[in-house]
Amino acid sequence: MSLTFFTPGPAELYPTVANHIQSALAEQIGSISHRSAQFRRIYQHTDEQLRALLNVPSTHAILFTGSATEIWERMLQNCVEFESFHCVNGSFSRKFYDTAVDLKKFAHLVEKPLGQGFDYEEFSKVTEGSPKKAEETGDKIRIPEYAELVCLTANETSTGVQMRGVDINKLKRSHRSKLFCVDMVSSAPYHSLDFEEVDSAFFSVQKSFGLPAGLGVWIVNEKCLARAEQLKKQETVIGSYHSLPSLWKNYKNFETPETPNVWNIYLLGKVAEDMNRLGVDHIRKDTDAKARKIYDFLEKADGFEPFVKNTEHRSPTVAVANTKEPAKEIIERVKAQGMLIGSGYGKAKDNQLRIANFPAVSMEQVERLLDALK
Amino acid sequence: MSLTFFTPGPAELYPTVANHIQSALAEQIGSISHRSAQFRRIYQHTDEQLRALLNVPSTHAILFTGSATEIWERMLQNCVEFESFHCVNGSFSRKFYDTAVDLKKFAHLVEKPLGQGFDYEEFSKVTEGSPKKAEETGDKIRIPEYAELVCLTANETSTGVQMRGVDINKLKRSHRSKLFCVDMVSSAPYHSLDFEEVDSAFFSVQKSFGLPAGLGVWIVNEKCLARAEQLKKQETVIGSYHSLPSLWKNYKNFETPETPNVWNIYLLGKVAEDMNRLGVDHIRKDTDAKARKIYDFLEKADGFEPFVKNTEHRSPTVAVANTKEPAKEIIERVKAQGMLIGSGYGKAKDNQLRIANFPAVSMEQVERLLDALK
Repeated sequence: MSLTFFTPGPAELYPTVANHIQSALAEQIGSISHRSAQFRRIYQHTDEQLRALLNVPSTHAILFTGSATEIWERMLQNCVEFESFHCVNGSFSRKFYDTAVDLKKFAHLVEKPLGQGFDYEEFSKVTEGSPKKAEETGDKIRIPEYAELVCLTANETSTGVQMRGVDINKLKRSHRSKLFCVDMVSSAPYHSLDFEEVDSAFFSVQKSFGLPAGLGVWIVNEKCLARAEQLKKQETVIGSYHSLPSLWKNYKNFETPETPNVWNIYLLGKVAEDMNRLGVDHIRKDTDAKARKIYDFLEKADGFEPFVKNTEHRSPTVAVANTKEPAKEIIERVKAQGMLIGSGYGKAKDNQLRIANFPAVSMEQVERLLDALK
Repeated sequence: MSLTFFTPGPAELYPTVANHIQSALAEQIGSISHRSAQFRRIYQHTDEQLRALLNVPSTHAILFTGSATEIWERMLQNCVEFESFHCVNGSFSRKFYDTAVDLKKFAHLVEKPLGQGFDYEEFSKVTEGSPKKAEETGDKIRIPEYAELVCLTANETSTGVQMRGVDINKLKRSHRSKLFCVDMVSSAPYHSLDFEEVDSAFFSVQKSFGLPAGLGVWIVNEKCLARAEQLKKQETVIGSYHSLPSLWKNYKNFETPETPNVWNIYLLGKVAEDMNRLGVDHIRKDTDAKARKIYDFLEKADGFEPFVKNTEHRSPTVAVANTKEPAKEIIERVKAQGMLIGSGYGKAKDNQLRIANFPAVSMEQVERLLDALK
């Protein structure tokens, strides 16, 4: 029996993907050279479609890696000599921090309890360690003065907590001297980031883009490149083939340093094109409408409640529910009706559910799921 | 028009791949969780099939990365504190060396002119820097005493030069105190390595395995793991999610640290199973028979000659030919007949051809190619 996947990644394939895979086979995409004009056209097309979808200006390159996890490493390796700063409120934002520790960076963090998120208003405009201005301190979160990179997670997939795009954009505007990197793994293209301000963001393709896993997408600007070049000059190790200067140099020619996942780059361009045909606003509104249905159900239905209390922090793309019944039993019951939902992450496995609300699932499919959950 | 790819990677898809892709779609492989029992069974199956095909003992793990290029970096990062040693005879063995330089290792190399290769007999059993024993020196190549890792390239894809498996195995046996890593990107499963001796080897799937690119396969033993753990303890940076301890820990459960290219891991298991059904000996003999045809043609036909003079160094899987006519014209002529061959690498683009002789192309297809080249 074929299942509909409401799991938070890998997830349901975008409805057009099966057809695009047949085209890829017919066009022999699995065999073409990554140094051919045909490949360069594919890269360029994917670049243009993502640029249109996410409103990415020409100051930013769009680069490909093996996974979003890899981008945690490459971002820190290329843009941090000593200190990074991390807003942590779940397992994935914590792993971004852990990566900095593994790379022997001096990593600062501010941590929230699971299920809670970050707002712009909580942050001081004054950095930690800088001379105090009385009107700007209080109990606000202060980004350390010497932090070179601020790492935010737009959508914490483990807890279903978002940091809203408007808050991310404002926080960057109030800390222009620092590089900002936003993990939008399970929210792109939902979150609308202002790339005139935000230096870097990244995602993987097996979430909202509904593709098989195996490709990370790194949006990154010239300021990050300049930083990486400066570190390289200072003899800091910034990696090898996937250092920012190496990726960027190849990107200028729509190539990659290594043989990349050509197949997925092709499919991503096709799906982004499909999404642009619908329009990103349409996708965002549709996501909001489906999310309202889901959260409304969770608030009213017996035996469920939304894990995230603050409605502004509730992720539109990954809804997390506390359950009275063991989560496993609910998952099995729904699976018997042809639908798969995710269990809670880590320790929350037994008493939470995660429901992905990616563009690949329709309102009708969401309604069918909620009927099954009743 | 559909083409037959004789390019050295990406290359012709293995004949069964299109069907396996349809199965992957039907089984929803693009959507399944990488933390599910279903994924663990897939990883285990691929591991078992590769283990059987390449005769890999239980001392070695089989790990997945984004590319073989990534494995150059991970191998050096995890197993070299200070010094590595590289046998260089073309662009890809040179890039392995360059990676060590990028990572600020003290990288030694011995370099051969393009088109030439390495034999066991050329190496001294005595290491450079160790007390001389008169009977063991002479003009032989001496591996530096303090080199922690010896990096060999079984098949130099840029020049079509192999180092024979028997020579690699003997060289390791005569230098047991050093870790050995063999790049078999464009030769696996042809080269028969003795994994009782060889510590690590790696390849990518878009060459002999005839799959779309986007997956590197790293075969690596417990000695390498112990070395990485020792470096980690000493506070050396060995990477993060793809450090050897992190990959190995996940591997024990047939999982990966990040969401991997599940699709390709599935396809690789299927193709390795198909190859095991034929038997690796059959594949090696078939490769030899096709290679004889190709080199025989290159020696006799007007306007062509094998680039590699020493027959023992001629790669069975990637044949390189010098051409009288501009390579581009030959490539165009053959393409008009539905076949694609590779140009020479880098500066040899205009006057060399590269013909891949991977398992995906049959003797019949090779004969058709040679007819077209006449």
